[in-house]
Parts: sequence; structure tokens; C-alpha cells
Amino acid sequence: MDIATIAGIVVGAAVIGWAISLGGSFGAFVDLPSVLVVIGGGLAATVIRFPLAGIGPAFVLGGRVAFTHKKVNPRETIQAIVEMGEIVRKKGPLGLETFQTGEPGLARGATYVADGHDAAYIRDSLELARDQYLSRLSEGQRIFKSLGDAGPAFGMIGTIVGLVQMLGNMSDPAAIGPAMAVALLTTLYGAVLANLVCLPLADKLSAKLDLEEINQTLIIDGVIGVKNGMSPSLLREQLVAYLPEHQHQSLLEQAA
Amino acid sequence: MDIATIAGIVVGAAVIGWAISLGGSFGAFVDLPSVLVVIGGGLAATVIRFPLAGIGPAFVLGGRVAFTHKKVNPRETIQAIVEMGEIVRKKGPLGLETFQTGEPGLARGATYVADGHDAAYIRDSLELARDQYLSRLSEGQRIFKSLGDAGPAFGMIGTIVGLVQMLGNMSDPAAIGPAMAVALLTTLYGAVLANLVCLPLADKLSAKLDLEEINQTLIIDGVIGVKNGMSPSLLREQLVAYLPEHQHQSLLEQAA
Amino acid sequence: MDIATIAGIVVGAAVIGWAISLGGSFGAFVDLPSVLVVIGGGLAATVIRFPLAGIGPAFVLGGRVAFTHKKVNPRETIQAIVEMGEIVRKKGPLGLETFQTGEPGLARGATYVADGHDAAYIRDSLELARDQYLSRLSEGQRIFKSLGDAGPAFGMIGTIVGLVQMLGNMSDPAAIGPAMAVALLTTLYGAVLANLVCLPLADKLSAKLDLEEINQTLIIDGVIGVKNGMSPSLLREQLVAYLPEHQHQSLLEQAA
Amino acid sequence: MDIATIAGIVVGAAVIGWAISLGGSFGAFVDLPSVLVVIGGGLAATVIRFPLAGIGPAFVLGGRVAFTHKKVNPRETIQAIVEMGEIVRKKGPLGLETFQTGEPGLARGATYVADGHDAAYIRDSLELARDQYLSRLSEGQRIFKSLGDAGPAFGMIGTIVGLVQMLGNMSDPAAIGPAMAVALLTTLYGAVLANLVCLPLADKLSAKLDLEEINQTLIIDGVIGVKNGMSPSLLREQLVAYLPEHQHQSLLEQAA
Amino acid sequence: MDIATIAGIVVGAAVIGWAISLGGSFGAFVDLPSVLVVIGGGLAATVIRFPLAGIGPAFVLGGRVAFTHKKVNPRETIQAIVEMGEIVRKKGPLGLETFQTGEPGLARGATYVADGHDAAYIRDSLELARDQYLSRLSEGQRIFKSLGDAGPAFGMIGTIVGLVQMLGNMSDPAAIGPAMAVALLTTLYGAVLANLVCLPLADKLSAKLDLEEINQTLIIDGVIGVKNGMSPSLLREQLVAYLPEHQHQSLLEQAA
Repeated sequence: MDIATIAGIVVGAAVIGWAISLGGSFGAFVDLPSVLVVIGGGLAATVIRFPLAGIGPAFVLGGRVAFTHKKVNPRETIQAIVEMGEIVRKKGPLGLETFQTGEPGLARGATYVADGHDAAYIRDSLELARDQYLSRLSEGQRIFKSLGDAGPAFGMIGTIVGLVQMLGNMSDPAAIGPAMAVALLTTLYGAVLANLVCLPLADKLSAKLDLEEINQTLIIDGVIGVKNGMSPSLLREQLVAYLPEHQHQSLLEQAA
Repeated sequence: MDIATIAGIVVGAAVIGWAISLGGSFGAFVDLPSVLVVIGGGLAATVIRFPLAGIGPAFVLGGRVAFTHKKVNPRETIQAIVEMGEIVRKKGPLGLETFQTGEPGLARGATYVADGHDAAYIRDSLELARDQYLSRLSEGQRIFKSLGDAGPAFGMIGTIVGLVQMLGNMSDPAAIGPAMAVALLTTLYGAVLANLVCLPLADKLSAKLDLEEINQTLIIDGVIGVKNGMSPSLLREQLVAYLPEHQHQSLLEQAA
Repeated sequence: MDIATIAGIVVGAAVIGWAISLGGSFGAFVDLPSVLVVIGGGLAATVIRFPLAGIGPAFVLGGRVAFTHKKVNPRETIQAIVEMGEIVRKKGPLGLETFQTGEPGLARGATYVADGHDAAYIRDSLELARDQYLSRLSEGQRIFKSLGDAGPAFGMIGTIVGLVQMLGNMSDPAAIGPAMAVALLTTLYGAVLANLVCLPLADKLSAKLDLEEINQTLIIDGVIGVKNGMSPSLLREQLVAYLPEHQHQSLLEQAA
Repeated sequence: MDIATIAGIVVGAAVIGWAISLGGSFGAFVDLPSVLVVIGGGLAATVIRFPLAGIGPAFVLGGRVAFTHKKVNPRETIQAIVEMGEIVRKKGPLGLETFQTGEPGLARGATYVADGHDAAYIRDSLELARDQYLSRLSEGQRIFKSLGDAGPAFGMIGTIVGLVQMLGNMSDPAAIGPAMAVALLTTLYGAVLANLVCLPLADKLSAKLDLEEINQTLIIDGVIGVKNGMSPSLLREQLVAYLPEHQHQSLLEQAA
Repeated sequence: MDIATIAGIVVGAAVIGWAISLGGSFGAFVDLPSVLVVIGGGLAATVIRFPLAGIGPAFVLGGRVAFTHKKVNPRETIQAIVEMGEIVRKKGPLGLETFQTGEPGLARGATYVADGHDAAYIRDSLELARDQYLSRLSEGQRIFKSLGDAGPAFGMIGTIVGLVQMLGNMSDPAAIGPAMAVALLTTLYGAVLANLVCLPLADKLSAKLDLEEINQTLIIDGVIGVKNGMSPSLLREQLVAYLPEHQHQSLLEQAA
């Protein structure tokens, strides 16, 4: 579990819940139709924006990545690939059969090399997996962004609907306050949905996506290099090109 | 039909309609003058922005593309072009007479090649068709975007007009509420028009436009290559240049 | 006349006027001081932004270009220049004396060539005219944009002024409503000025400016080429470089 | 004096003042604490953003440049430099002792050359002066921009403070209106400060800054060229590279 | 201490406090739950955006850099490095043992050179320190930006919660005003937090970050150059490449 994501949402919700409880009952803040207008409307606007087939899996994957903690460190990935290169040099490709790594793409690549597949097949298989993974993750990120934009919009739409109903029926003055309170709930739901959940998640996914793109591409080139029997030091030199500018030198020097 | 587009609009409208029905009659939410202010004003501001001649067809085409589902997959297009190249290699240009494809541009190109037109004529004809199609699609996208911006603006203008009328005539207190309710309807219409229909459609068209631009350009270069008797493997290598960076290698490897 | 511009503003104004007339008298919506605050304030903020000398002509030129319809088609301009090249080839520069074209810059260029001015003089004269025309048009566009931003801002300022006056003097409750109605008028004027007139006009001018820049530059290079007796086919090849990427080939093929 | 800047601010203030005077006394619109909240708060937020030492001079310089009219025309500067080159060719460097120009940087450069300083010293001195001038001007522009952003924010903060005070003390209904009127004054001050003064001034400074950067850089290279005895026609050719693309040719042709 | 940062926040807070004191008691403006909603909610949304491990140190470092005044001047750094180069030329690496500088990275570099570490080790150590410093500073900047965005959002959420509570319980009219006053406090807190503290601090950190990035990179290359016995004039020539364009020449000329 990504503790930061969980903790942020739980704490944010707790703070709002606590503020509500100070004023009396929770009941006044729960209104199912309002929830449906914000969630339903937000989802409707989002569904229009994306191809139907991929929206479900992308949403699920995005949620999973945002809430789970996976250590992604390109420097460590390079280190692991260099180790693979050394194993192949010493024991040949079969030596990779017992290679252990927490990075699934790298593990798959090691198995492919150990199994003796040719480079073209390995690249194809790994690239296909990476492309599908990254494009789904990217779509997941854009779905949360779209929900974060559409949520407050439908919150406002729901509030205006409530205001129009209230204004058109002001015979009982005592009912005006509660009616307006209910009307405001959609705006509240939309604001919480966007500012506590969707927009921060979209930002987090965007950061994870950048990291994964570097990491996955690095893995593919590294595995192909290992397959081709590239020397470990050459491997390292080529792979650091994927790192941000200012990290190049230090890695190369380590290799020297 | 593009189910996502239809479903999104229907579900969004249903959710809002349901919220309205909870509060009583639909009648309070229907006001023809308000509809005319938002739609008329939004269209007026949009008409100023675009050349008059093309605005109708562009709007129609944009709507059609947004609501219909056409599978556009550049990888499959390349595959089909490579097949065309193989047919020409084996049976000569006339072999393309029976070539079947769901992509209209490609079908037209195959017919041209089979009919023995020269490359210059084929390129001219296909490019003219593509340019007109893409520029209309792009204009359609910008029209929906402009409507999505102008709708809420005219919604606000309508609401201010209603408020001024109500405020200038407050002799009958009982009329204030309903008058304000009516005044708010233009804001509601503008928000729904923009957030449920126009802006999501503009986003969807924008995505489809990017895909079509790659796909159509790829078709033209591919058909000319086929006409010139380029070898299938060379064709594939040239066409993958149109795909996003990270998809190149895998396609070329397939060709190898 | 550019029918789209006129029609858009007339229809937009008619729709708003009709909505006003539904609620009773127009009188309640006319308030000269409010007009002066929005227009005067908007112009004041705009005057600060631009050099004083050019603001008047730029505003007039911008308005004229936005409201009049001039067909600008770089492809047709290239065609006309190629014709000029053919005339010069057949009849010599004097043949251009009777050359007819609706494009003023091109007509002037033809006259210069027919009159036997040297290339340097022709280029200087045409470039000076183009630079002045384009920079005024561009300034006109930015003036409308600035007015479209400042209008609503001064509308809000006017409304706050009205609210402060009303709130400071609430001894007569019956006067509150009408006073607030008047206060809202500046916001209404600002919103209409920006959304129906200034911002759409700025967008339209921006599109026309892009087109004119290509077209005028093309004319100058073309006329110089004609003056230097360049062959028509070479002329065409050189000029298509000014067109957007995807239009190059088709024009060159026509020339072949 | 830059008449446009003065006129814009005076006319804008006059229009708002006139609108205020229509509603009765000016007194209701003057509230010193409100002025202090907007100006003081806006300055406080601005002071945090910039290094303390330079904020005063930059503000003063920015104000001076925005309000005074200095003709800056790179074409005329080039002309003057070419004249300098001709003088040096004919009479030697001492001929520049009587060279007259309204541009301070150029005048200083001419004196340096006449005094026989070496090129390195001249370049150093002129560059240091230019760097300090431009960076102060740029900081002045960003200070006005920051004030234009912070002003309305503190206007809103002041209004909320006023509203909270009013709402917490509603025992005297007659005091509610005037209290709210005062609360709104900070919003009014913030809006006027930003939209009539700060943002337009920032835009104007931004335009002047672009022009000065070209002009000052051009002066330095020109003076060094003159010092080195470059031929006037070569000087012109080199300096036009600083002008926007489309102005190159015409200047070079003049030189031919 | 960075006097500008301290002064700005103190003055801004004093101005707001003074405006509050004019209206009576401070007590009406202090509401612990409101503080918790804005700060807690803002932090919650921020925690989701960033990896948990680094958020604390980054926040602390960002605050420290924003509030303390450290003179960072790349020109002076270059000067100091050139001095180091001269010392090494005259007295050998050991001469650096007594080298004094206020810049910690440079001091560490001088020690490393004096201690006779090899270039690869020096570069590695300095780069690692720089990377960690800069990435934490950058994260600190983004944390303040995120807080500046989330603060007003949770301020609005708190106000809506308060409004709903008030509207649902209007039996005692005398309680409406104070309840609304409390509801508005979260909006006030959010606006002050963002506009007086977080956004200006984020801007200041962003400027300091740009400067530090140039300065630290320059130090590393300079120390390595000193280690390798590069001539002082060559050192200077290489290091000025890190300065903004228009500062190059003057530094090089100084060297000549």
C-alpha cells in the first residue's frame, strides 16, 4: 500500500468529517441523489472523452498504481541489468535462470534470455507489454484528471437545479434553509471529490508515469544488451543515457 | 454508433433529469427563451469566429465523427498497405481490383493503383481528400470548443438579464422566487451544454483528429509506395516513421 | 461585408434584446453612465497597454478587416504569380501592364515590374507596405483582446461601485431592488462586450492575420522572382514552401 | 511623459470617479484602512517574492519607464551606428567627439571610442550598464505583475474580514448595509489597482523591455564594430540580424 | 535571516490583524476547527501528491532556504574557483588546505582536492550532494505550491460545510449571522495561507532553485578543473558557459 495516498485521503476525509460532526448530525450531509448527480455526471462526461473499451481497465490500473507502493528506481534497475550482464558473461544465459528481481519486466526479460529466445522476439514481447502498460497508466491519469474537472462542474449543476426547485416553491419559508442546504451538497461533494481525491491522484500518477517510462524503456534496451552479450561496462554507459542529465556522470564514474 | 459518446450524454442527461424529477415537475426547468438565449448567443459568438461557408459542414462532420465509431489503427493500416504491396508484387497492380479494406482512403488508393493512374494523380487526389477531411474535422473540433466557451458566458448573460428584470420589479414579493428561478435556468443550460456535451465532444474530436492525421498521411505515402512497386519490407520500414517513437522497433522487428 | 461577423453580432444582440423585451421595457436596461464606465474604463486600460500614435489606426483597420470579407487564398496567389511569370516570359515585363488581380499587393508589384523599377526598390516598397499592414493588423487584434479582458473587469468594478452606493443608503427599502438592477448593468455590458464582440473579433483577426502573413510574404518573393525572370515552374516550387507542410506535394505535382 | 499611460490612468480614474459622484458623496468610497489592507498586503506578498535590495530601485525604474516616453527604434539606432562608422572612416575616432545622439548608451559608446579605450574595456562597461538596466527593468515589470495579482487577492481577504465582522455583530440592522459597503471597498480597490494600473503597466513594461533588449545589444555590437573600424556597409549587414526576420531584407537593400 | 521573506509575512499579517482589530475583538477571527480544516485538508491533499519519505525533509529545507539569506552569485563563485586554480598552480593542491569560502560545496571540494582524492571520487561525492540538495529543494517548492492551491480549495469546502449546517438549522435567526461568520473563516484562512505565505514562498524558492542549479553545477566542474590542474584562464572560459548568454563576454574580457 502507498501509505501517503491512503493517509492523505483518510486524514482529509477525517478532517472534513470532524468539522461536520462539530455542527451536529452527519445525516444533513448525506444525500444519495446529490452523490449520484456528481459521480454520475462526472463519469458521464468522462466516458464521452475516452474510448469505451479501455476506460474500465485504465481506471482500475490507475487506481491500483496510485494506491500501491512500488519502488521504481532507474539507478537500481541499471545496477540489476549490469549484474545480469555479469552473470551471462560468467555462466552464460542459463545463469539467469536463478536471477531474482522485484521488477516484473526485468524478471520476464531474464527468463526470456535464459530460455534462449532470439533478440527480436524478446524485444517484441517486452515492448508490447510496456506499451500496453504505459498507455493504460496514462489513460488512467487522464481519467482522474477528467473526473477532477467534471466533478465540480456537475456539483455546480446540481446546486443550480436545487436552487431553481427551491426558488420556484417558496410558499413555506421554513423549508427554504434546508432546501438550500441540500442544494449546496452537490457543490461540496464535487469540491471534495476533485480536491481531495481526483486531482492529487492524477498528479501522483503523472509522476509515477514519468518514472515508469524511463524505467521500462531502460529495461528493454538493457535486456537486449544482455542477450547480445554486451560487456557490463558498455551496458552501463549506454543505459545512463536514459537518466536525467545531471545523473549521468556519477553513474559512469562508478563504472570506471 | 460510438456507444461511449451516446451513453455518456444519455446517462448524464438522465442523472440531471432524475435530480429534477425528485423535486417535482419538469415544467419549472423548461423555458424556451432561456434555451434560445444560450443556444442562439453561443452560436452567434461561434459564427463570428469562423468563415461562414464551412461552419455548417464542419459542425455536421464533427458531430458525425464524434457520435460514430470508426476503428482507426495505424498499425493495422500499415499491415494492410504491406499486404497491398505483396499483392502488387505477385499479381501486378490489377491484383488490387479485388482488395478489400474498411478504410475508405485506402480503398480509393487501391482502386487508383488498379486503374493504372500515375503516381502524381493519385497523390493529388488523395491529398486533396485528406486535406479537406482533416481541416473540416479540425474546424468541427474548434466549433464545439467555441460553443463550450460561449455557452456558459451567454448563460451568465441571460441570468443577469433575468436578475435585472426581477430586481426592477419587486412590487410582488411572491414573484421574486420564481423569477429568480427562471433567471438561473440560462446558467444551468449553459453549464450542461458545455460540461456534458460540447467540451467532452471537443476533446474526443481532438483525439480522433490526431489519429486520423497520422493514419491518412500514412495511407497516401503507402499507396504511392505500392504504386511505385516498393518492396513490402521497405514499405513497412518507411511507414513506421509515422508512429509514436516507442512503437517503431516492435513493428520493424515483426518485419525482420 | 463579412456576413458571418455581421450576422453573428446581429443575431447575438437580437437574442439578448428579445430576452429583455420578454420581461418588459428596454428602458431598464439602458443606463448611459454604466455604458461609459465599461467602455471608458476598458479603453483606458487598453490605451495604457499600447503606444498612443498607432492605437486609432490599428483599431480602425482591425475593425475593417474583421467586418469585411476579403478572399485570401495562398494557393490562388501562387497561381496568379505563376501567370505573371508566364506573361513576362512571353511578352516581357511590359506585358504586366494589363495584368488584373484582386489582390492589392500583387497589383502594385505587377505595376512596379511593368514600370521597370529594380528589384531592390520593389522589395523595399512592398516590404514596407506589408510590415506596416501586418503590424497594424496585429495591434488591432491585441486591442480587441485587451478590450475583451478589460471590459468584464470594469463591468465588475462598476457593479461594486453601485453596490457600495446602494448598501450605504438603504433607508428606502423600495429603492434597493432598482439600485441593484442598475449596479448589475455594468457587469452585463462588460460580459456582452467581451463575449459577443471583442473576443470573437480578436479570434477572427488572429486567423486572418496568419493567412495574410503567409500571403503577403509569398507575394513579395513571387514578384521579385517574376522581376528576375525566374521560370514559372521554379517560381511555383519556391513559393509552395510558404504553405503548410501537407499542401506542398499536391501543388508541386500540379506543376509537374 | 508617456501621454498614453498618463491619459489611460487619468481617464480610467475619472470615469470611475464620475460614476461614484453620480451616486452621491465620495466620502463613502474613501476608507483608509481598506487602502492599507490592499496596498500593504499586496506589497507584503510582493516583497516576499523578490530580493529586498533591488525591489525599491526596480519599482522606481519600472514606474519611470512606464510613464516617460522614450523613442526606441532599432532601425534608427542602426542608422546612427552606421553614421558613426562613416565618421570614424573619414575623420578617425576623434571625429566622434562631436557625435550627437539621444540614445544614452550610444552616446557613452561614442565617447569611449573617441577617448581611445580598447574594445574589451568598452564592451565590459557597456555590457555591465545594459545588464543592470535590463534586469532592473525586468524586475520592475514582474513587481507590477505581482502587485496586480496580489492586489485583488488582498481585496478579497479584506472583504471577508469585513463580512465576518458584520455578520458577528448584527444586533443593529441599520448598520448592516454600511458595514457591507465598507467591506466591499477592499475588493473595489484591489480590482482598480490591478485592472487600471498594475496589469496594464506590466504589459507596457514587457513590450518596452523586449525593444530595449534588442536595442541595447545592437548598440554594444555596433560600437565595438565602429571601434574596430568595420566598414559601414558590413556594420549594417551584421546589425540587422537583431531585427525581426521580416525586416532584414529591406534594411540590407537600403545598404546596397 | 532573509529579511524580505520575514518582513513580507510580518507586514502582511500585521495589516490583516490591524484591519481585524479595527472591527473589535480578535476572538471572532480565531476558530481552531477552521484552522484544522484548512491546514489539515491542505496537507492531506499535498501528502497524496508526493512520496511520503521525502515530504518532511523537503518541507523543512524549503522553509529554511526561503527564510534564510544565503548569497549565491555565480560570478563570485567563478572568481573563487579561479583563485583556487591559481593557488594550486603556485603552491600545489596542499595550498588549498587554508582556502576560505562561504560556499559549502566549494569548501568541501577544496578539502577533497587538498586531501588528494582522485577526480572520479570528488565528482561522485559532490554530484550526489548536489542532486540530493536540488531535488529536495525542488520538492520543497512544489510542496508550497501544492499547499497554496489546496488551501483555498479546503477553505471553500469548510465554508460550504458551515453554510449547510447553518441553513439546516435556522430556527434561531439570531444565530445565523455568527454561524455564517464562522463559516467564512475557513475561506479567509485559505486565502491568507495561499496569498501571503505559500504562493510567494513557492515563487521565491523557484528563483533560488534556478540560481543554485547553475551555481552547484559550476562548482563541480570548477573543482574538477582545479583538481586536473587546468590553467585559471581556461577554467574561467569554461565556467562562464553556465551563465546566461549576455553575461559571457564581459567575464571573458575580464579574463583577457
